[in-house]
Amino acid sequence: MLTFVGLGLWDERSVTVAGQEAIRAADRVFAEFYTSQLAGTDVDSLAAHHDVEIEVRDRAGVEQDPEPVLAAAADGDAVFLTAGDTMISTTHVDLRLRAHDRGIETRLIHGTTAASAAASLTGLQNYRFGKATTLPFPYAHGGEGVPASVCETINANRERGLHTLVYLDIKQERGEYMTASRAAELLAADYEDCLGVAVCRAGSPAPVVAADRLRQLADRSFGDPLHLLVIPGDLHHVEAEALQTLAGAPAGLADRP
Amino acid sequence: MLTFVGLGLWDERSVTVAGQEAIRAADRVFAEFYTSQLAGTDVDSLAAHHDVEIEVRDRAGVEQDPEPVLAAAADGDAVFLTAGDTMISTTHVDLRLRAHDRGIETRLIHGTTAASAAASLTGLQNYRFGKATTLPFPYAHGGEGVPASVCETINANRERGLHTLVYLDIKQERGEYMTASRAAELLAADYEDCLGVAVCRAGSPAPVVAADRLRQLADRSFGDPLHLLVIPGDLHHVEAEALQTLAGAPAGLADRP
Repeated sequence: MLTFVGLGLWDERSVTVAGQEAIRAADRVFAEFYTSQLAGTDVDSLAAHHDVEIEVRDRAGVEQDPEPVLAAAADGDAVFLTAGDTMISTTHVDLRLRAHDRGIETRLIHGTTAASAAASLTGLQNYRFGKATTLPFPYAHGGEGVPASVCETINANRERGLHTLVYLDIKQERGEYMTASRAAELLAADYEDCLGVAVCRAGSPAPVVAADRLRQLADRSFGDPLHLLVIPGDLHHVEAEALQTLAGAPAGLADRP
Repeated sequence: MLTFVGLGLWDERSVTVAGQEAIRAADRVFAEFYTSQLAGTDVDSLAAHHDVEIEVRDRAGVEQDPEPVLAAAADGDAVFLTAGDTMISTTHVDLRLRAHDRGIETRLIHGTTAASAAASLTGLQNYRFGKATTLPFPYAHGGEGVPASVCETINANRERGLHTLVYLDIKQERGEYMTASRAAELLAADYEDCLGVAVCRAGSPAPVVAADRLRQLADRSFGDPLHLLVIPGDLHHVEAEALQTLAGAPAGLADRP
């Protein structure tokens, strides 16, 4: 059996009770943290908390050499851990398909996600979000400023009155995490006076949510990663009130974005 | 302190460890199950599992008479439970705003969601979903068949190649849950040969995921609630392979939806 467990958003207590039980009952516990990370803990703390050994696999170890994981799952109960929900990356789906091809039973235990937390924390309604997008570091996409595809997603959502969740680039190997300020600065070139909402350390005990014009957000500092940015579409009155009351949006701005 | 806890998707073990700790440490525990439900448990089991008393509030009790909840949160640690994530409904945001107005500190502990589970279970990539929609029972929206707004959402997503998550109507007071079969039958009038994916009992130990033409799904039976339906947009090759391997999509259909 191969059980994929989503660890949720923040630390060792962000996993579900069902997920924790699966981890503790497993014969072998694997994990990958190159597609997503837990900002509030590290592998050693996680292993100590659950009193298990965690075998961390890098990208090559998952994508090119999945055999040890599959062999463990064929022989006993193997668990594969990821931050957030499981199956967020194609890599995980591919691993599940390989297991299926080998006749290994698979099971998913879901985790909490940044997408849901961004909606909850901002007070913006989940069903009024359109497609999400990811804002890369300019050096990473080889151009300057914001890739056209990011603007296309935001624009297409705005035309339909929908909010856009903007995931911010992570270069884990370089220890670089795009901040909400940097993202706001980049996006301000195209959406100068537009309202943005910084969502920082979602899932932690003390998340920061701040709504302001992108140009203003660019001048602020929001502390440790991970950060997200939301570009709101049309706002219902409770959404506007939430952004003003809970996120400090300037009065008048949230009313007419 | 008022702590909103999302209970996740299925039963008493779907909550996060952090959420469970908050429930057990609270002075008073409130819950509402009119916006969303846990299909795999009931209130008595939940209360017994956590060894707490759970005070269930109906819609009027939350929206028109929130005073007992606010008073408990002003005097001590109150927890407010919902199925799935918290803040899914405007009602919860409104309650949080009222607490804020009273100077009561609030905190969110996120839960797993059907939206994330639908992506994980189908192998469809989360970031390739557009806006979600809800399909009501025909009698509930006063028309016949599918409301124009539902088709507009599906069409707008498909034009952009995006998947659509279709939540299915629940009339809790009548004990009516729209099945994926019924939804497929309704949507087949507009999207006859279109591929659909039924996602049944997401978050449970034995979810069922089935991909087929809507007209075929309409003739099948998928057992107990809750059900969801996904209308895929363009499929990447791993997505197509996942629908064929994990959900039984007919070969050729998932390749060219």
